[in-house]
Amino acid sequence: MTDASVADLAEKLIACPSVTPAQGLVFDALEAILAPHGFEIDRFVAGEAPDGPVENLFAIRRGPAGSRHFAFAGHLDVVPPGEGWTSAPFAPERRPSPGGDLLYGRGAVDMKGAIAAMAAAVRDLPADAGTVSFVITGDEEGPAIHGTRALIERMRERRDVPDLILVGEPTSTHRLGDMVKIGRRGSVNIWLEVEGVQGHVAYPHLADNPITKLVAMLSELESLTLDEGDEWFQPSNIEITDLEVGNPAHNVIPAKAKARISIRFNARHTGAELAERVAAIAERHGGTARAIISGEAFLTPPGAFSSMISDAVEAETGVKPELSTTGGTSDARFLKDLAPVIEFGLCNATMHKRDEGVAVADLEVLARIYRRIARAALAC
Amino acid sequence: MTDASVADLAEKLIACPSVTPAQGLVFDALEAILAPHGFEIDRFVAGEAPDGPVENLFAIRRGPAGSRHFAFAGHLDVVPPGEGWTSAPFAPERRPSPGGDLLYGRGAVDMKGAIAAMAAAVRDLPADAGTVSFVITGDEEGPAIHGTRALIERMRERRDVPDLILVGEPTSTHRLGDMVKIGRRGSVNIWLEVEGVQGHVAYPHLADNPITKLVAMLSELESLTLDEGDEWFQPSNIEITDLEVGNPAHNVIPAKAKARISIRFNARHTGAELAERVAAIAERHGGTARAIISGEAFLTPPGAFSSMISDAVEAETGVKPELSTTGGTSDARFLKDLAPVIEFGLCNATMHKRDEGVAVADLEVLARIYRRIARAALAC
Repeated sequence: MTDASVADLAEKLIACPSVTPAQGLVFDALEAILAPHGFEIDRFVAGEAPDGPVENLFAIRRGPAGSRHFAFAGHLDVVPPGEGWTSAPFAPERRPSPGGDLLYGRGAVDMKGAIAAMAAAVRDLPADAGTVSFVITGDEEGPAIHGTRALIERMRERRDVPDLILVGEPTSTHRLGDMVKIGRRGSVNIWLEVEGVQGHVAYPHLADNPITKLVAMLSELESLTLDEGDEWFQPSNIEITDLEVGNPAHNVIPAKAKARISIRFNARHTGAELAERVAAIAERHGGTARAIISGEAFLTPPGAFSSMISDAVEAETGVKPELSTTGGTSDARFLKDLAPVIEFGLCNATMHKRDEGVAVADLEVLARIYRRIARAALAC
Repeated sequence: MTDASVADLAEKLIACPSVTPAQGLVFDALEAILAPHGFEIDRFVAGEAPDGPVENLFAIRRGPAGSRHFAFAGHLDVVPPGEGWTSAPFAPERRPSPGGDLLYGRGAVDMKGAIAAMAAAVRDLPADAGTVSFVITGDEEGPAIHGTRALIERMRERRDVPDLILVGEPTSTHRLGDMVKIGRRGSVNIWLEVEGVQGHVAYPHLADNPITKLVAMLSELESLTLDEGDEWFQPSNIEITDLEVGNPAHNVIPAKAKARISIRFNARHTGAELAERVAAIAERHGGTARAIISGEAFLTPPGAFSSMISDAVEAETGVKPELSTTGGTSDARFLKDLAPVIEFGLCNATMHKRDEGVAVADLEVLARIYRRIARAALAC
């Protein structure tokens, strides 16, 4: 068996359409990549409608008894391609550019490219270096209820709990290696609702305008300072993301008014605490609040694990990465309960956009960085 | 020709379905009622889609040259009946009740009953008592753009401008005669819009949330005190009647946010002045405001005309009516430019509701009150 290039491996994965929830072919492709290199493959389906079923894959190659276990976590599902691509989104295409060839296709950076890079990175690691695993879900971009959470449960049941976890999300911004994520803010969405009494605008004393109360509620929420941020996190932030009344009648005071807010919060808060705080404000204004916590904040404070990653990046690129906690959520929000987790991957400039693409050279460099990280993680 | 009872006349009008814009049959019915009593009938159609065409009727019986001209204004259109009526809304039905027979049907009180009462009131007035006219539109409950406004133009063109105008809207509340409207507040609806920059909630610094600005704008508008009211008017009032964003994505800061407000204002303000004031606030918060003035406020200060009406009511009912300016707008907002205008009519408890109904006895009493008013108005 000749060793395929990282770009070749990435193409094999990109060529399998896998809009969330990913299933079937794309998992077959990954299994075909890993199995020849001694990985034991455990594929399973979790959950039921409406949030499932979700296909997941756990692949492990065990080192000697008692050896350390390094896990790579990621997802094979991709966001919908949308319109206007130069080449078909699921027909990977390499096109030349001034900086070298670029490989285009949905998932090139988020994150089939990174999975391919890790597969290439560990395929030739000596088996006695330690235990290596892949924790791969088909639902990270979707509800994510039966994806990584089910994998965590599976690993616990199998007693294959890793010592360190690297998540391959595209964390780099302007160039490969410039950013590593050692934490993420948590996220909670809260639906606010005020019921009033419908009436004619000419007789406001006979009605009870729920919009008046909702605006006062939202003003108070806007004025909250949740925190000032800290050494590792930017300040927690509340955004109002929707308003809804839907009253076509100009002369009618409506019976109900709704809003939705989204809070991104740092590790000083929990989703439940914030939900409770917002609910108290909502109630004071005669309304109700229903919260859905998308994920708690996590922080893997800078230390041995982050140094391991920084050193690997610097050795291969000359770049000293910024240790950041910015951006959206990732499945690291779940994995943090299992072992220390850090995220590092490709440049995210084109992720979720049309003409998602990755420099072929970056794929090779990423594989070399990942190899260094894996060696260091297993050697601890 | 035998004189039909007021209820008989009302039934003839109610039996013609005439949801806004009213046309054809119901005007034929009114013409058939008035023409035999010496009224010259001028029916015409005004306007085009989308606010027209609208059918209108001007009926006049001239007194001796130089005699006074008393006009009765009203509308033959009705609001949609809705569901759940005990009897068919356009099949007038008399049913006994403890207080005497009630006549049911859409328009019974708003305001075919009043038109029938005035027709009965003036049919036997001696022709030399003065000039009497009916100013009747088919679009008062709708856009009202080509209704009473077109009638006013018509009367000016015909040089048939009245000295006093009585509008037959149902102004009574608990019993016939308890309330007369000597003024109405004006009404302006204003559409507010803020454009922002769409973005991801995780990166609020790259976006510009229009909802934040809209909420601040609405808070400022809510905090305005337009006035404290005066002897004749309650305070002017702002109600927020709609909010609209329509953003289904929990993690997206939307690009646009909208609201609609409705201001009911007394005679201290004009629609244009208020629209300008709101626009300045909207602009200060980065938004825009588009106003549509439904009608200006009007006040016919208490005096000879209101006394004429109060005296007529008191003579027939023993009730001394309250002179009020409360409630929604009416076509008096337009008629005020032509001559002093006051509104008086049936009880409004069932107007715009299912099972709209009127006491048959009230129709007869109203006709007698109207006859007294007409005599007094022509005798001035």
